[in-house]
Amino acid sequence: MAAACVFCKIIKGDIPSMKIFESEKTFAFLDIGPLSKGHSLIIPKHHGAKLHDIPDDQLAEVLSVTKRIAVAQNIEDYNVLQNNGRIAHQMVDHVHFHLIPKPNEQEGLGITWPTKEADKSELSKLLEEIKSKM
Amino acid sequence: MAAACVFCKIIKGDIPSMKIFESEKTFAFLDIGPLSKGHSLIIPKHHGAKLHDIPDDQLAEVLSVTKRIAVAQNIEDYNVLQNNGRIAHQMVDHVHFHLIPKPNEQEGLGITWPTKEADKSELSKLLEEIKSKM
Repeated sequence: MAAACVFCKIIKGDIPSMKIFESEKTFAFLDIGPLSKGHSLIIPKHHGAKLHDIPDDQLAEVLSVTKRIAVAQNIEDYNVLQNNGRIAHQMVDHVHFHLIPKPNEQEGLGITWPTKEADKSELSKLLEEIKSKM
Repeated sequence: MAAACVFCKIIKGDIPSMKIFESEKTFAFLDIGPLSKGHSLIIPKHHGAKLHDIPDDQLAEVLSVTKRIAVAQNIEDYNVLQNNGRIAHQMVDHVHFHLIPKPNEQEGLGITWPTKEADKSELSKLLEEIKSKM
């Protein structure tokens, strides 16, 4: 728990939320500034700003809870998004996964996909670098 | 395994890939059409088009592998994205999680965030609906 964290306060119940689900490790609630109807947030209770700050065991349940909320909403088209860092559109510094239904082109998450030409030999070098650190 | 699925073929090794990681349930490789340097795909080996098609136990490891690849790259700013449905920008019908470094405004994932005004009483109704189906 981080005293100044708005999501920690929501988990504690000090700030009210539209709670969908709660377990020992996970908390989920409706986003009150939704991109589309049913936009939900799924968070590990463990406080950490970014994905790499969260222990593995605190992450293990997040996707099954996300899935369960998608199934409860009976949605077929949706995005799951988790942002790390202001530049990557993170607004609250407690790891959160957005479940964002995509009912039509206008509502839901807007994505732009500026693919780069990838140089195969540079990719191979990068691959070896990453693998050496795994 | 789905015979016609390109990601199932990658898992089997019938199509080569820039493989970063493989375990019993999970496979990860570099995206060869990256949005930024280090753009990686993390997939459950279990074939299913959408998140809600994948059994929970096949999802449990996905985020810890994603995290491990982020740590191996020593990145601070990145997006994790999983798309379901063509309208939501899914291009391959085998569940995949994008790990997309966000090194600057130009590279990486582009996001637009068309927030809607949410009516609190409609949100409350929706919440009860979702909760009744969880």
